[in-house]
Amino acid sequence: SRLYHLLSGKEIAKRIRLESNDEIQKIKQDVPEFKPFLKILQIGARPDSSTYVKAKLNASNESGVACDVEKLPENISEIELLEKIKDINNNDSIHGLLIQLPLPKHLNETKITNAVSANKDVDGFHRYNVGELSKRGGEPYFIPCTPNGCLKLLKETGIPLKGKNAVIIGRSDIVGTPVSSLLKNENCTVTTCHRYTENLPQILQNADIVVAACGQPNFVKGDWLKQDAVVIDVGINYIPDSSKKSGRKLVGDVDFESCKNKASFITPVPGGVGPMTVAMLVKNVLQAAKTAESQNNKLPTCE
Amino acid sequence: SRLYHLLSGKEIAKRIRLESNDEIQKIKQDVPEFKPFLKILQIGARPDSSTYVKAKLNASNESGVACDVEKLPENISEIELLEKIKDINNNDSIHGLLIQLPLPKHLNETKITNAVSANKDVDGFHRYNVGELSKRGGEPYFIPCTPNGCLKLLKETGIPLKGKNAVIIGRSDIVGTPVSSLLKNENCTVTTCHRYTENLPQILQNADIVVAACGQPNFVKGDWLKQDAVVIDVGINYIPDSSKKSGRKLVGDVDFESCKNKASFITPVPGGVGPMTVAMLVKNVLQAAKTAESQNNKLPTCE
Ligand SMILES: NC(=O)C1=CN([C@@H]2O[C@H](COP(=O)(O)OP(=O)(O)OC[C@H]3O[C@@H](n4cnc5c(N)ncnc54)[C@H](OP(=O)(O)O)[C@@H]3O)[C@@H](O)[C@H]2O)C=CC1
Ligand SMILES: NC(=O)C1=CN([C@@H]2O[C@H](COP(=O)(O)OP(=O)(O)OC[C@H]3O[C@@H](n4cnc5c(N)ncnc54)[C@H](OP(=O)(O)O)[C@@H]3O)[C@@H](O)[C@H]2O)C=CC1
Repeated sequence: SRLYHLLSGKEIAKRIRLESNDEIQKIKQDVPEFKPFLKILQIGARPDSSTYVKAKLNASNESGVACDVEKLPENISEIELLEKIKDINNNDSIHGLLIQLPLPKHLNETKITNAVSANKDVDGFHRYNVGELSKRGGEPYFIPCTPNGCLKLLKETGIPLKGKNAVIIGRSDIVGTPVSSLLKNENCTVTTCHRYTENLPQILQNADIVVAACGQPNFVKGDWLKQDAVVIDVGINYIPDSSKKSGRKLVGDVDFESCKNKASFITPVPGGVGPMTVAMLVKNVLQAAKTAESQNNKLPTCE
Repeated sequence: SRLYHLLSGKEIAKRIRLESNDEIQKIKQDVPEFKPFLKILQIGARPDSSTYVKAKLNASNESGVACDVEKLPENISEIELLEKIKDINNNDSIHGLLIQLPLPKHLNETKITNAVSANKDVDGFHRYNVGELSKRGGEPYFIPCTPNGCLKLLKETGIPLKGKNAVIIGRSDIVGTPVSSLLKNENCTVTTCHRYTENLPQILQNADIVVAACGQPNFVKGDWLKQDAVVIDVGINYIPDSSKKSGRKLVGDVDFESCKNKASFITPVPGGVGPMTVAMLVKNVLQAAKTAESQNNKLPTCE
């Protein structure tokens, strides 16, 4: 058995939350009314959504970001929801607006996410932000949280990304595709894989970096990996486990047990990408608040 | 020496122009005032831009699309140009607006291309169209012409694209990146390469499809290719050639002589992607005109 490094998103995320908190306190010394504010709209009451919303609320609190969760009825009409969003867009004291996905079937997700002001779109899902992210030298207001969390984890390894072969398993709009864009911008050579990829184990033989975001429990196997690959596991899957009180167990898209012996760095599930996602969200809200303040000429323009 | 198929963009483009012409004449039988109209703005007088503009004008004429080229002075101010664009955006008789790139240095290319109405952006460079193209199930009004020309050429081979390994050499916003998006949407497994890609010949060993768009004369060599690869050469490069009256010779990004013996299909330069680009532009104008007409309820909604 050889040594691998566990990339603990949990610890890194905690550090980021503390840093955000410090930064906010420091700004408040000069601008007492500085108050980064995140609004979350949760439509309906899916239990998984409630769990995620709670994690976002907790992380906001720990980071010194005010967060208000508003629960809206499952059967809200599109017009009512759009009106709500418009009010929030126009409310200067709210810096970030997050609509918890997925939405009930009668609501058009594309339409709703694009109704959020691009400069309050802390999830990074607005067409403007998606378009800018996909371009070279594009300037999105916000980078989507999960992909940005993956990138931060990769940077934590200290390994230069330039010229590395990165294989992304998954091409969804919220994970796979933006991860591909981000790593391309870091000058990785990026291969994007999906359901119709025919020779994935062979493609992985050449991968210095693997990001698994396919929603398939324990999918990536150790003997597919190149020796010393860096492995980021985005997956959140529940599989039956009679030894647990809940009757189920959380696993990623990577078969951790076989992969840890090949990887140089590997993220655990839970405690890997999940907490990073939430930390990146909070950072986006802080950034939005700083931009708003600097536009009020109260702060110098921030990086 | 073995057999390869020459993918003649020249011939396919000609067919597309004739088809467009037929379609326009047919629509005119029902809607006599139907008149697809392309406006081209050329700022300054770069000789290469003049050549490209002329090709677009000729192709429009051959396809039955009206085309007006307006030449603006090199030193036009950004405000004047933006005013001009606004007028054209508001002019219902103009269906497509193309600003010939590159622009003089004092004009911000991003700002100018984004000033064109997304639904007249027949080049497909507007942020809206870029963003939609990069998303799964996104709905751009227009697909950028050169990438779409590459896709059409690949489809001409009759080879199913699903599951094929495609390697794209180049990641520019106007060629490499949108080609990657289009082929990903066709369910290819896509690898995007660039200047920092470290082992390109090795990566190409696995490529069923190669799209070369790196602007490096005769760059891709035959012994890098997988046997029977399909090779699309986007490059337009001039190299010195004393045997020519002009003193120069046009070559692509692919070393045609060594590659033709490995490839199953290969595009020539000239006569490959170039004419397809112009044909796709004309098709975009026709589509814009059809959409405008159908919104006037004069035509049934078109595909
Ligand atoms: N940690 C976090 O904070 C977050 C975690 N997640 C988790 O990440 C995972 C991915 O999420 P998301 O992108 O939204 O999921 P989607 O279901 O939207 O996308 C899954 C992607 O994986 C591809 N895929 C599916 N099966 C295979 C296979 N056998 N081989 C190769 N590719 C395959 C799909 O291909 P195709 O396109 O062909 O269908 C698709 O592109 C999930 O487990 C999700 O729970 C998601 C968001 C946040
Ligand atoms: N036929 C047609 O209608 C058209 C043809 N073209 C032609 O296509 C070619 C590409 O155009 P365009 O995309 O605008 O060019 P750009 O110069 O904008 O982009 C070139 C791309 O190739 C990459 N590249 C450069 N050198 C290498 C190398 N040695 N190995 C691997 N990748 C490399 C660059 O990488 P990096 O990002 O790291 O710099 C960059 O991404 C040109 O020859 C152009 O004339 C363009 C438009 C239309």
